[in-house]
Amino acid sequence: MAIEAARLSPSLAAAAFLARRPPPALFPFSLRGRVALLRALASSSGGDGRVVALSSSELRKRRGLSSSSGAAGGDEKLRSLRRLFGRPDVAIDAYIVPSQDAHQSEFIAECFMRRAYLTGFTGSAGTAVVTKDKAALWTDGRYFLQAEKELSHEWTLMRSGNHGVPTTSEWLNDVLPSGCRVGIDPFLFSFDAAEELKYSISNKNHELVLVGGMNLVDEIWGEARPKTPEKPIRVHDIKYAGIDVPSKLSFIRSQLAENGCDALVISMLDEVAWLLNMRGSDVPNSPVFYSYLIVEVSTATLFVDSNKVSEDVLEHLEKAGVKLKPYETIVSEVERLAEKGAKVWLDSSSVNAAIVTAFKSSCDRQMKKKGKVGKKVGEKEASSDEPTTRGPGVEDGALNAVFNVSPVTLAKSVKNEAEIEGMKNSHLRDAAALAEFWCWLEDEVCKNMPLTEVQVAEKLLEFRKRQDGFIETSFDTISGYGANGAIIHYRPTPENCTSVGRDNLFLLDSGAQYIDGTTDITRTVHFGEPSLRQKECFTRVLQGHIALDQAVFPERTPGFVLDVLARSSLWKIGLDYRHGTGHGVGAALNVHEGPQSISYRYGNLTALQKGMIVSNEPGYYEDNSFGIRIENLLLIKELNLANSFGGISYLGFEKLTFVPIQSKLIDTSILSPSEINWVNDYHEEVWEKVSPLLSGDSRDWLWKNTRPLLDVTQ
Amino acid sequence: MAIEAARLSPSLAAAAFLARRPPPALFPFSLRGRVALLRALASSSGGDGRVVALSSSELRKRRGLSSSSGAAGGDEKLRSLRRLFGRPDVAIDAYIVPSQDAHQSEFIAECFMRRAYLTGFTGSAGTAVVTKDKAALWTDGRYFLQAEKELSHEWTLMRSGNHGVPTTSEWLNDVLPSGCRVGIDPFLFSFDAAEELKYSISNKNHELVLVGGMNLVDEIWGEARPKTPEKPIRVHDIKYAGIDVPSKLSFIRSQLAENGCDALVISMLDEVAWLLNMRGSDVPNSPVFYSYLIVEVSTATLFVDSNKVSEDVLEHLEKAGVKLKPYETIVSEVERLAEKGAKVWLDSSSVNAAIVTAFKSSCDRQMKKKGKVGKKVGEKEASSDEPTTRGPGVEDGALNAVFNVSPVTLAKSVKNEAEIEGMKNSHLRDAAALAEFWCWLEDEVCKNMPLTEVQVAEKLLEFRKRQDGFIETSFDTISGYGANGAIIHYRPTPENCTSVGRDNLFLLDSGAQYIDGTTDITRTVHFGEPSLRQKECFTRVLQGHIALDQAVFPERTPGFVLDVLARSSLWKIGLDYRHGTGHGVGAALNVHEGPQSISYRYGNLTALQKGMIVSNEPGYYEDNSFGIRIENLLLIKELNLANSFGGISYLGFEKLTFVPIQSKLIDTSILSPSEINWVNDYHEEVWEKVSPLLSGDSRDWLWKNTRPLLDVTQ
Repeated sequence: MAIEAARLSPSLAAAAFLARRPPPALFPFSLRGRVALLRALASSSGGDGRVVALSSSELRKRRGLSSSSGAAGGDEKLRSLRRLFGRPDVAIDAYIVPSQDAHQSEFIAECFMRRAYLTGFTGSAGTAVVTKDKAALWTDGRYFLQAEKELSHEWTLMRSGNHGVPTTSEWLNDVLPSGCRVGIDPFLFSFDAAEELKYSISNKNHELVLVGGMNLVDEIWGEARPKTPEKPIRVHDIKYAGIDVPSKLSFIRSQLAENGCDALVISMLDEVAWLLNMRGSDVPNSPVFYSYLIVEVSTATLFVDSNKVSEDVLEHLEKAGVKLKPYETIVSEVERLAEKGAKVWLDSSSVNAAIVTAFKSSCDRQMKKKGKVGKKVGEKEASSDEPTTRGPGVEDGALNAVFNVSPVTLAKSVKNEAEIEGMKNSHLRDAAALAEFWCWLEDEVCKNMPLTEVQVAEKLLEFRKRQDGFIETSFDTISGYGANGAIIHYRPTPENCTSVGRDNLFLLDSGAQYIDGTTDITRTVHFGEPSLRQKECFTRVLQGHIALDQAVFPERTPGFVLDVLARSSLWKIGLDYRHGTGHGVGAALNVHEGPQSISYRYGNLTALQKGMIVSNEPGYYEDNSFGIRIENLLLIKELNLANSFGGISYLGFEKLTFVPIQSKLIDTSILSPSEINWVNDYHEEVWEKVSPLLSGDSRDWLWKNTRPLLDVTQ
Repeated sequence: MAIEAARLSPSLAAAAFLARRPPPALFPFSLRGRVALLRALASSSGGDGRVVALSSSELRKRRGLSSSSGAAGGDEKLRSLRRLFGRPDVAIDAYIVPSQDAHQSEFIAECFMRRAYLTGFTGSAGTAVVTKDKAALWTDGRYFLQAEKELSHEWTLMRSGNHGVPTTSEWLNDVLPSGCRVGIDPFLFSFDAAEELKYSISNKNHELVLVGGMNLVDEIWGEARPKTPEKPIRVHDIKYAGIDVPSKLSFIRSQLAENGCDALVISMLDEVAWLLNMRGSDVPNSPVFYSYLIVEVSTATLFVDSNKVSEDVLEHLEKAGVKLKPYETIVSEVERLAEKGAKVWLDSSSVNAAIVTAFKSSCDRQMKKKGKVGKKVGEKEASSDEPTTRGPGVEDGALNAVFNVSPVTLAKSVKNEAEIEGMKNSHLRDAAALAEFWCWLEDEVCKNMPLTEVQVAEKLLEFRKRQDGFIETSFDTISGYGANGAIIHYRPTPENCTSVGRDNLFLLDSGAQYIDGTTDITRTVHFGEPSLRQKECFTRVLQGHIALDQAVFPERTPGFVLDVLARSSLWKIGLDYRHGTGHGVGAALNVHEGPQSISYRYGNLTALQKGMIVSNEPGYYEDNSFGIRIENLLLIKELNLANSFGGISYLGFEKLTFVPIQSKLIDTSILSPSEINWVNDYHEEVWEKVSPLLSGDSRDWLWKNTRPLLDVTQ
């Protein structure tokens, strides 16, 4: 699935505020670790349109909202919200409502969709800001039309990315008189994002108020607010996880020791799931469960609703020496760490402002109590005047906090043998489902059966469901026919979608969660006669896909170095695409993960490493006409070459995805002999690997669709 | 000519201190403009081995130094230098002697080669540091052997880039007791470099002492020190310059107005030369003259030795309203600017610390005098507590200084029509000289005439001298046979060089200054039978050269994005090269100029722009065996493509260099049909453009060497 490229991607918490950030090359040294991850995440999961797990229409249905009722309701909600501004324990002049949950998750549970509830706008990405007399919603180009429909007249739509549209903080600085109090729920902003916001509104002497103890939208939502998810957690079998929990904890503890830390606070849900070899289903598309984890030198504590924890899971945790505490007690536990003088590792790009500020405040109290004497940990005397650094992390001298990228992030991204095995196996089953699906669809379309984009996506789900170990989709299927294919993150809805026909291209980007792996694949096909223009564009995209697939590169190469390989064939004829080329993918985890990416943005300096998985998905989109994207997942492997200049490793890619690329769309006259060989070799491999899983028509379909290109042209 | 890639390039002033700098992505915001240029320069001119204009042997000869006498002299010099440490007006514990002049020049006059004089080490790159009881010299891998020979036993050789070797400031922090005074000549450090040094030695509470009024090495050099150059300045004809001085000054003044400044101080010699359409010959290889320039809103002042200024030049300057002042009065003039309250634009990455600190001190005195009242310029109240920024520049609130990249840098790099014309014409004449040279050399070698690398370079100079408008070489010719070709910045000396034979590759990297343009070309040839290995490596390098040459890219693309195109064919077989792929080239000016570059380093975010000139010079170097490099210069031009996605321009390259690439070295079985076409098309163009300038044998040679590749293989 492609990565949105909008510069003002509002999908991360407070991303609207990021828009005013200087480019990463210009960042203060002290922010580097945090910023790197933030950028990595922003480009791998940002603005991808999948924070909302349900389609807008479905959401509206569930909540009994129509556009008009939503609008009417919105007005009353705004009044209620503003009434809260005046409460003595609140006392604010404005309130910002982002799209996030407390864990910077890409997919969130319904109870956390506060921005959608407040505004009536159900798109995945957006930030609402309410002052005493104004209400504005920021979203990006994907959602302008939808937001226009869904917002009441009291809301101003701020079209992020359009010329002259201010960021949220610029707007606040503009509409509020100097010296106002701007409130946020500190759980919904990473510490970094909150600091950024604080800084940007300080230009106008506004104060950032962390409104604690309650979320104001929840207050007005009241009884109608959906329950927090209580889905049972399961153990992720060691045969898929590869490394047991004690070994993983032991690695984290070695990292703690190396960085002179006593504890690590983990708040990203996929990091908790990976580290504990556990999976859940609290949110759609990602097998995660709402929780925090604190790893200390000799203990580890999982903060989770105990209702979700079965006997099996409890036993699994006990074996690994992991204790349970209620989800809500994370803040008080972090304060307890501060009290006992522990040096705590916090990834401030993901850990929310509520946790970090609670820790800081508690440290300050300790400091005052002890008068800067008797520091338990570390040899250096902490002093706010002399911030010190240790390793790549940034130590806040005023307290025992070490701000650094979570050590789980990189460990999780480098897959072990069992994870790779699971990814390979699940991809073959997924390929079989897709072969059956494409065989069926081609037949239906050729019989002129009227099938909508949504029906096609539903049928694909049926085929996948028949595969062993299938759990759910890994993101909402992007099923776009003709002009809809040109909308990069198009989501068809039953009321508003097109039939898939024989006159234009059909782009299908989909993926699945299996017990042993996560898939993500895009194919673009034509069931009739493609135009020369379509073939030229498709072939150029394919050349980019092939160039990246065949890339060989020295170790320590960041992904952005390779991005040009996927674009240069398009650039040659003046074409391009406005999204990144590759994102990381979890093993039976999130379909988008950091820290690596392959993007034209230069901010992510993470080196591509052996064992990482990335997508390879160049595209081309002709507005109001058609869209093309070709996506495989790739495993990074070490190559055994004839030379190794510099005595270092050279890396390359191994394909995980084995589904035919439609030969009909390839203009072989543009391809070089080696590119033609690539296509033929790939199709031969597809046949060899996937045909044993097929029979009957779908096996025939696979045979026909894996014939060498030269046969096609002869 | 290739760009050195050593991470610890010591060629810029204080570059050794840069080594401890965090990568550019991690830089404080306030430094961004300065750092960007510093990086640009570091990669375009850094460590390229040409700061010393004369070969080491020639220098030694001139000064009557042998290795041993140099060593013996060094000891006495050290004693003399240390005696100066104790003088009340000096009072320092250590003194740093860099390789630079006061203008951050790549090539410097002999009188400024203080580091070479003091240490006896005559390599181009190095920094000497002397304490009361220690003396150490930092240089990089190119010069380890030479430095070992030339340094006396009192000197410790610090092998920059080797594992565990400290930077100069780390070493100072290590060997000096806390709280020492470290002296520098503030003219020899850019303000940024001095600040960086100040910061890095402050860890050990050392104080950076700007030893004013004298250079301590000059003190001990005394009468023997060569005179400062007094070569006459000439007017660079408008037919080559394209834009007259009043127009250029008017552009600079519009930049002053836009940035709210009253004056610009220019200290880079090529910037002065470009802006005033004047050329000189104070240093070898670059047609520049020692000077500073201050442009004010209604006046402009050139600080130069009036002996160099002829009547013609004076008239030229008067027409443009440029006054003359003595070179030495630059500091007092800058103080005068401060006194009158002018807001002054200083590029602190190039303007030296003497000038900037003089300005700052004078501002401080004014401030005290006026008690912060009555600021003449700008509306804002300056306050040292509240630094403000304006545009991309950084304003130092404590004084009227605006630190920003010089507006001349980019203007100079984007060539106008006349400059492009001159570059094209001079390249054709250069190509004719090279064709004559290669024809001659092939003949001599085949006749088994014993010719050394130096004799070959001298003969090349002879051929070039016959061309109209030839002035001098644009850098010391790199003439490397066999294993010497693997030394990226090899400089043969008469006593220590090899004969060019028929058994190995011969790499020749050379260039010339003509009245109308500057050239830089590398070819690698074999006069006998190349091995399969050599052909494979050569062909891979050629593929990289072709891929970059053919690149098409959207406007705003920084050069580093394209670097991978030049490497990926080598990476495919596990090979690489340790230098950048392209540097900017001046028009009848410096052979290395910023701000653009094409490099695997990601620090230079300067976009490649229409009208810029870059080199395209991938290579491969097999230690102790052979070296390969293929270099053309390219002009960036706007393309007229079938599409222009995003409504932007797409850019590409036009070749300036027209000299055959040896077909014998090309393994056509590795090349794609389009790569074969590229070679054939290029050779056809070479023939068409250059044959009219040739006759007799050299014309025959050109014909033979521009035949299509298929003829060769058939």
